[in-house]
Formats: sequence, C-alpha cells, structure tokens
Amino acid sequence: MAAALAPATSLRFKPYSTLRCFSFYRTKIPKTRPFIFPPILPHTLQQACGRRGLCSVISGALHSGEAVERTKPEFVEKWKGERVGEFRKKLRIADVNGGPDEGLDRLGQTLIVQGWVRTIRVQSSVTFIEVNDGSCLSNMQCVMGSDAEGYDQVESGSITTGASLWVQGIVVASQGSRQKVELKVKKVVLVGNSDPSYPIQKKRVSREFLRTKAHLRPRTNTFGAVTRVRNALAFATHKFFQENGFVWVSSPIITASDCEGAGEQFCVTTLMPNSRDAAHSPADGIPKTKDGLVDWSQDFFGKPAFLTVSGQLNAETYATALSDVYTFGPTFRAENSNTSRHLAEFWMIEPELAFADLNDDMACATAYLQYVVKYVLENCKEDMDFFNTWIEKGVIDRLSDVAERDFVQLTYTDAIELLLKANKKFEFPVKWGCDLQSEHERFITEVAFRGCPVIIRDYPKEIKAFYMRQNDDGKTVAAMDMLVPRIGELIGGSQREERLEYLEVRLDDLKLNKDSYWWYLDLRRYGSVPHAGFGLGFERLIQFATGIDNIRDAIPFPRTPGSAEF
Amino acid sequence: MAAALAPATSLRFKPYSTLRCFSFYRTKIPKTRPFIFPPILPHTLQQACGRRGLCSVISGALHSGEAVERTKPEFVEKWKGERVGEFRKKLRIADVNGGPDEGLDRLGQTLIVQGWVRTIRVQSSVTFIEVNDGSCLSNMQCVMGSDAEGYDQVESGSITTGASLWVQGIVVASQGSRQKVELKVKKVVLVGNSDPSYPIQKKRVSREFLRTKAHLRPRTNTFGAVTRVRNALAFATHKFFQENGFVWVSSPIITASDCEGAGEQFCVTTLMPNSRDAAHSPADGIPKTKDGLVDWSQDFFGKPAFLTVSGQLNAETYATALSDVYTFGPTFRAENSNTSRHLAEFWMIEPELAFADLNDDMACATAYLQYVVKYVLENCKEDMDFFNTWIEKGVIDRLSDVAERDFVQLTYTDAIELLLKANKKFEFPVKWGCDLQSEHERFITEVAFRGCPVIIRDYPKEIKAFYMRQNDDGKTVAAMDMLVPRIGELIGGSQREERLEYLEVRLDDLKLNKDSYWWYLDLRRYGSVPHAGFGLGFERLIQFATGIDNIRDAIPFPRTPGSAEF
Repeated sequence: MAAALAPATSLRFKPYSTLRCFSFYRTKIPKTRPFIFPPILPHTLQQACGRRGLCSVISGALHSGEAVERTKPEFVEKWKGERVGEFRKKLRIADVNGGPDEGLDRLGQTLIVQGWVRTIRVQSSVTFIEVNDGSCLSNMQCVMGSDAEGYDQVESGSITTGASLWVQGIVVASQGSRQKVELKVKKVVLVGNSDPSYPIQKKRVSREFLRTKAHLRPRTNTFGAVTRVRNALAFATHKFFQENGFVWVSSPIITASDCEGAGEQFCVTTLMPNSRDAAHSPADGIPKTKDGLVDWSQDFFGKPAFLTVSGQLNAETYATALSDVYTFGPTFRAENSNTSRHLAEFWMIEPELAFADLNDDMACATAYLQYVVKYVLENCKEDMDFFNTWIEKGVIDRLSDVAERDFVQLTYTDAIELLLKANKKFEFPVKWGCDLQSEHERFITEVAFRGCPVIIRDYPKEIKAFYMRQNDDGKTVAAMDMLVPRIGELIGGSQREERLEYLEVRLDDLKLNKDSYWWYLDLRRYGSVPHAGFGLGFERLIQFATGIDNIRDAIPFPRTPGSAEF
Repeated sequence: MAAALAPATSLRFKPYSTLRCFSFYRTKIPKTRPFIFPPILPHTLQQACGRRGLCSVISGALHSGEAVERTKPEFVEKWKGERVGEFRKKLRIADVNGGPDEGLDRLGQTLIVQGWVRTIRVQSSVTFIEVNDGSCLSNMQCVMGSDAEGYDQVESGSITTGASLWVQGIVVASQGSRQKVELKVKKVVLVGNSDPSYPIQKKRVSREFLRTKAHLRPRTNTFGAVTRVRNALAFATHKFFQENGFVWVSSPIITASDCEGAGEQFCVTTLMPNSRDAAHSPADGIPKTKDGLVDWSQDFFGKPAFLTVSGQLNAETYATALSDVYTFGPTFRAENSNTSRHLAEFWMIEPELAFADLNDDMACATAYLQYVVKYVLENCKEDMDFFNTWIEKGVIDRLSDVAERDFVQLTYTDAIELLLKANKKFEFPVKWGCDLQSEHERFITEVAFRGCPVIIRDYPKEIKAFYMRQNDDGKTVAAMDMLVPRIGELIGGSQREERLEYLEVRLDDLKLNKDSYWWYLDLRRYGSVPHAGFGLGFERLIQFATGIDNIRDAIPFPRTPGSAEF
C-alpha cells in the first residue's frame, strides 16, 4: 500500500528533484549530473530502460569534482566523496485525502502515487484503479482512459489486486460519493505484479484466516487501521508522559533476579542448542552437575534466567531517583491460556510516581487514559469511523464518553456491599475477601454506574501482591483496579509499601526469600519515599480503543501456546 | 531525587489544593471535607500526626452525598462513589532552575521541594542542603537557619546524604556562583532517612562499582544525566519518525521463525523448570523423544523458539503494506563478548522505507541522526555540559559538527582504493573483498574526512547479508554503513532485494532453506516494491551522544555474559 506522491509539475521542470521523484526524497545532486527522465523503476522497468535502476543516478560520481570542500584531505586530493542527499517527508495519500479540503485544495496538481492495487474495475471507456499506500484507510481512486501511457498493462491484465503501481496523474474532482478528488492518470507503471494466488482478494476473508497470513494482513482495511491506531496510542503514550515530566526507562527483558515472583515465566538459555540444529538436539547434551542437576553455571548468565513478567520493580529503582518514570516494553507470560484475552508476549506501560499516593496514582491513570483516547479520536478519525461501522457499533460514543466523564472510585468494601445488595444472582458468590470476577466487574461499571469507568480501591491484602502498601485497617492494601465497560479491568495499580519494616514482615508472611529482594529493600533503606504506579497491557488498550474482539488481532505477530510463527 | 514543587502561597489559603500538596496533584475534594494542614507525610510523620497518612484524605468519603449525579444507579441510592481526582503536572526543580530566568522569575514564591539529599553542610549559623529530584542535574540549594521548623532533624543528624526530604521555603536570590536562586527554608520534614551504609556518598565512586549498584546509580550525576539523555533520544526518535509519516511497528521478541539466520540466539523455553525450582532442576526432567532428542513438541510453542536478533524481516512485511515503518524494541545476541561495546540485550531502531532505494535510505539515516543529535543539544543542555566537562571534553562540538555537516558517501571500492593509497600501515591488510576493520573505518572518518561522518556503500556481496539488493556489477550489493568519529559504525542498512528470482538464487547460494522463508518471499510475489532500511543500536547512539565509554553504562540494567542481576 505504499505510495509516494510528488507534485510532478516540479518534477517535470526541476531536474534535481526529478532524479529522486521515485520516492520524493530529494538528493543534492551535482549540477554536472545528467538529467534523467522518466524515473527509473527497478525490476520491471529495468530491462525496458536498460539501465541500473534506482542506484544509477549516483554511480560514477565520486570524482565529479564538487561537494565536501572542507573535508578535503590533504594527502590525497581526489578522494572527495559525494554528499548524502537531503531527506524529505513523502507526500502520502493521507496528505491528500486527509488534507484541509479532502484534496480539493490540490485540484489541477500533477502528483505521483505509489501504492498497492486494492481493486481494479475495467469498463469500456474508463478503468478505475483503487490504490492504497497504507498512510490512511481510503484509497486514491485512479481513473484511466485508454490513452494513458501504460494502458497496455491494463489490457494485458497484469495490473491486478495486490500489485504495486507507480501512477502519475492530475488531481480532479471526483464524481463518486466516497471521495472528493481522484487522480486522472497520465501514466502508470507496474512496479511489482501480484501472483494470482494472492490470498487477500476482494472477497471478505476471516480474521482467523488472516492470522495465518500475518505478513500480508496489514494490507487489509482492518489491520491497516489497527496498526495506525496502535501507532497513535503508542505515540500518545509517550507524549502524555513526556509532557508531564516522566522519563522513559527501559526495564530489562531478561532477568535472573529472583524477585519476579511465582508467575509462569519463560526460561532464557543457551544450554539448549541454537536455531540451526535445535530440531535435532540430543536431550543429554545439556550440561549436568555431578548430582544430575542442570548445570546452570555453564549457562550464558551463570544462573537460571527468565523473560520478565513486569518492569515494575525495576521502574521503582528509577522512580526513587528521577521522580516520575514510565516503562513501555514487552513482557511475557508462559501461561497456557488459549483465550481471546491472553498473549504470551505483550507490551506493557508501567508508570511509577515518586512522592505520590494512591490518589495520585488513580488521577494519573485516569488522565492518561483520557489523554490517549482523545488523541486517537482526534488523530485517527477515518480509522475510528471504520471501527464504528464494521467492528463495534458505538465505539466512538463509548470512547468519547470515557474521554469526558469523571471516573468514579469506590472501595472494595463498598463494592462488595453494593454487589451484595444488588438484586442479582451471580455465578460466583460475593463475599468480602473474594476476588472480583468479570461478572462482578462488568455489573459495577456497566449496570451500577451505567457505563462509567470505575476504580475499585483498597483491596484485601490477601488477594494482592506483596509490594502493595498496607492500609491502617491492617486488612486492606492501597491497590486499585480500573474497570471499563466491555473490557473489565484495564489498569491495575497500587501505592507501594515504602516502609521497610512492613515490607519485610510481608515477605516473611509470604515465605519469600528476603535476600533475593536485597536491592528492592535497599530502596526503603536509603531515602524511601511514598510512591505509586500502575500497569496497563497495551494490547488491551488497543482492544478497548478499536473494539477488536481478539487480542491476537491487536499485535502484529501474536505469540500464543503453540504459535510463534513469522 | 524526586521532588514536587508547589506554590505554597496557594497551599496556605486554598484548602482543596492543600490536601494534595504533598505531591501537587490536585484532587476534586467534596466541600464537606475537613481542611487539613500541614500535609500528611506517611511513615515519618504518621506517628506525630496520629493519622493515616497519604490516604487519609479520601477515606470515608463514599457516602458524602456529592458527585457522580448522572451515574446514580436506580436500584441503590446510596452508592454514588467519589470522583477520581484531577491530575496535574508536578512542578519540578528543572522547572525552576531551568525556567526562563533560572528561577529569578520566581523570587518571593513559596515552594515545596521534594527530593533526595545530595549533600548537607552544617555551619554555625546556617545549614546548606542540596536537594535533587532527578528532573535535572542541578540541585535546589536549601538554606536553613536554626529557626526553621524541623531544624531539630538537622541537629539530631538524621538528615544525611541519600535521605528524602519535604522542604517548604521561599525562593531567594543566591549568593553562590552555581545557581541564581535558592530556597530559604521555612520548614523541613524528613520523609525517609538514609542508612549510614548508603553506598553513594559524596566521594567519587567508580562506574565499575556503580554497575554493582544498578538500583542506586541513577541517583548519581552521571547516571541521572545518561538516563535523561537516553529518554530524550528515545522521544526524539519517535518524534522524527512520526513527523515523517512512519508508523511504529512492534516486531516480535520471541520467534520460532527459521529465517533469523545463524546468529547466536537465546533459546526461549518452558521445558526447563521455572524460576522457583530452577536451581535444583534435574537435567533428565527435560522431555525426550524415543530417540533421545529434546521433545520440542512439548515446549510452549511446539517447536524451538528464540529471542529475536533483529526485527527487520518483520518490519519489511509492514513496510510493504503501510509504506514507511520503524521498529524500536529490544533485540538479543547470545554472543560471548565481554567488551565495552557489546550487550546481550539492547534496543534497536529499524526503519524500513517502501518505494525507496539506497540513496533514500542514506538520506533518511543522515536526517534521523542529525535530528536526534540536534534535539539532545537543544533539550539537554545542562546534561550535555556535564558530559562535556566530565566525560568527554569536546563532545558538544563533536555533536554540533555532526548536526550541521553534510555527510559524505563513497563506495566500498573507492574506500579500498583510498586506504591502499593512504601512506599508512594498517594492522589488517587492505584488499578488495575484505571486511573493513575498525582501524580502517576510523582512518576514513577521522583522518581522510577529518571528522566528518562517512557512509560507505556498495559492499562486496560475500561479506553482506542475503537480503541485500544485488547491484548490476554482480559483485556488490546496495548496502551502506555509516561511520562516525570515535564510534566507527553507528548505522548499517541496505536496499533490500525485491526481485524474487534474485533472492531465491541468493538463498540457494548460501544453502539457506527457502521453505522457511516462505512469508518473506511472499512479499516479493505479491506487489513487490523497492524498499530499504537501516538498523541502529540505541545504546551505541547513547555512547555517541554522551561520550560514555562503556556500553554497560548506557542502559539501566545491562545484560552481559554472567550477569543479569536486578
């Protein structure tokens, strides 16, 4: 779907940019360079033109006697090199269709579009080719008469769905209802044809099927839109935290630290053979100690190492030095859950705030969610319309609501009372001390608070992690879960136990080995401060923002039990 | 080093914000809430005040009869919840010291600073406490007479290096030469004391030593500055690509794909025991087939899986759908290299441009590098001054030069000729076809081109990867390496072979199994386009930008042979 659009008026008359018009990145070309037109397309055009293709324009220029005056070495006059060209942003279909007047501001301009054919309709007098470059959902409709240069490629049937094209044409007003402008084609060049076996033809294909074609599915409307929204959410995440003075910290992916807890972790090792011979590796090739145990001392890290399940503890070390930090990186669970809500590899966002309590934490989580939701509504309008029409009717209203509403908080104790007094029979009985189930969470946010996001706080300490700060009642901890309609829990966070003596008691209670937490405890020995943070699964956020049902469709290459292809 | 600064004039008189002044995040508090001052500090202040600390302000508020009108459920009138507070950006020391007039614009304001003690000097009439909150290199100098509230904590010696403080005071002009303003302390509260064993005392400690204290080293000047510059480089990276229409794609971390090549990879498995019992795991517990081979069908992914060494091939699948994309994520090498230039886990940036050739690729790499270097010079002035003084004299000039200079390109063939004609004896003899060694690269960029970054292009195909596009000479490929002074190779890239038949021949030549590349070859079967990309090790970039010698100091928690602590 890639396309570069370049105003070809200038291409025609300015030789320097003409040379780079293929992709519209201008290069500073010495004036002595020959003027070449039309642009050279590799592969398909190469034989026709009998030249080297894309690279030809700069070959043999080393001795051209220009450029780099001040870098001239004394010892050898002739080695002058050539300057590297200037980089310019491509003009994309999004810049035309999404422009101030949906392209009407460009009427009469000659542009070059480069992208992939979505559909081609050959009629008697005119041919319509829908070209997409992935910059936006909508295509550029290219309208072509039989007099256009390259029309023979239409006649021969070589321009088919999935093929890549270079199209030059004039922007004209469109008769169609779906777009304001279209391109009246002057010239078309087939860049790469598409084998008839192309699996993404016009007929609808299921998302299940597309998961087996993860390398081609971004060429569909749905996955193109998911990818752009994912990108927008990621950038909005960085923007939000940067604007608020947070520092991005990369927490480690591989960890031999013992304090990751009992989560189901992947082991990272070089004791098993490497990719080349893995399939035929003798099991007894693994180094053993005298006692028949795995000899971890021979492993890469000298001891067992695992993939991280959370960057939180590491983030805390940086928060207690830089105040406010956030992580944004991949995390892993070796859980054998084959559901539409679980991935073995997923991205997490974990902010950590120093000199902050649970209220600050909730305020930050709320502000963050509202910020990124607003960002997507404002910056991904076309994609959101698509989701609203085809994936989840009403998703735009749901998100607008979240962006504007005051979020509600209530304590776990009150939530239990609410559930008990609700005249409703739950599958899982409700009782103080129980973990809230999905049915309870959805009842609270969808029924009791009529679609308003709700934060439940102050959970019983028995059902929460060791590092959460104990409340004065001795029974609950300063934890919070943010529940949103449709998804349930989207964000989980807590104030951290900053009091050394409380933390040590808690570790003892849970029979965790204090020695392995030495560095985590150090944060409480040296200038401990109240601090809090939360975690957010990025793919859950994408599901929330797009309405996409299955989490495997929210990440480019999903990893699940039995599946790590591509 | 965390600190929150709040204008305490308003704190004193506006009860609502007073309640949240501890961290300066304002909450919307029902008007019926009691007015509490001074702010409640947990831990140390708790006993003195006899109240609950940070969380106290919102307890018991559920039934306060305000808020969330429109979410009122019919079935139970009393469950109204309470609104979540509003999130506000903290005022940080950086906002004062780095303000328009280095804080002079705030003279007379009462602020609250929260952070960590860097030094304390007790003199007869006055005490100087340097407080740092990690938002910038410079401290807030807090000047305290014996009449200040909390002075007893100075007298008792409990305020020591590393302790965390809450300080309220008035901004006054400073007599010192190092800062324009200081804080005349009205009140100080010790938030968390620092055990005398605190390893980062005023005396200089080596960076080797600090690697063993990776959880505390961000509290030092050097690592605070590295972290902020790292953050700035990461954000500038996203900004550059977003502004140029690139879409961020998360390439997979775990991959069972066979086409990662022969690189030294980490195996990811659940056949080895999990963290709890790993140390005592019998080697014969690993599932075997009848033939004594490792039974991979029982592994999590049903076959051998590895940590990625590069996201490029995956990025290509998205570039040929969305035009221009980039990855920014962790990658791994199980190489047993214990050098100052190698990490087992590092972050990579891999842009991939569709409808682009090697010239576009070089132009993009150059523009990218210049953009992020400029960004850091403009946004991290204080930190860069620090590096310029203490880490690498001249680093600012070196970077300014890179940001402004035209980069030079020359072909590998010309580079060889240049080296052969240079009147210099190299350790590794030069000959067409040889890989360029560090000494050659440094000679070219540092001597021949006098410190100008140089891109060498069109390398012999034998020394480059299979996916690089073959040039018409049949001997070279459209590859490029960017060499920069001091570091050598910083960026490596290429135009990719988009011609199916060429790629297949190359795979055969290298005896690679074509079947395992089915999806990569598909990109050439269906609408293939010329495309190009490059890769950049993020930690190398940080070394380049800061002058930090050892790559282990450029990432929060370095992973190297024998070491994956924290």
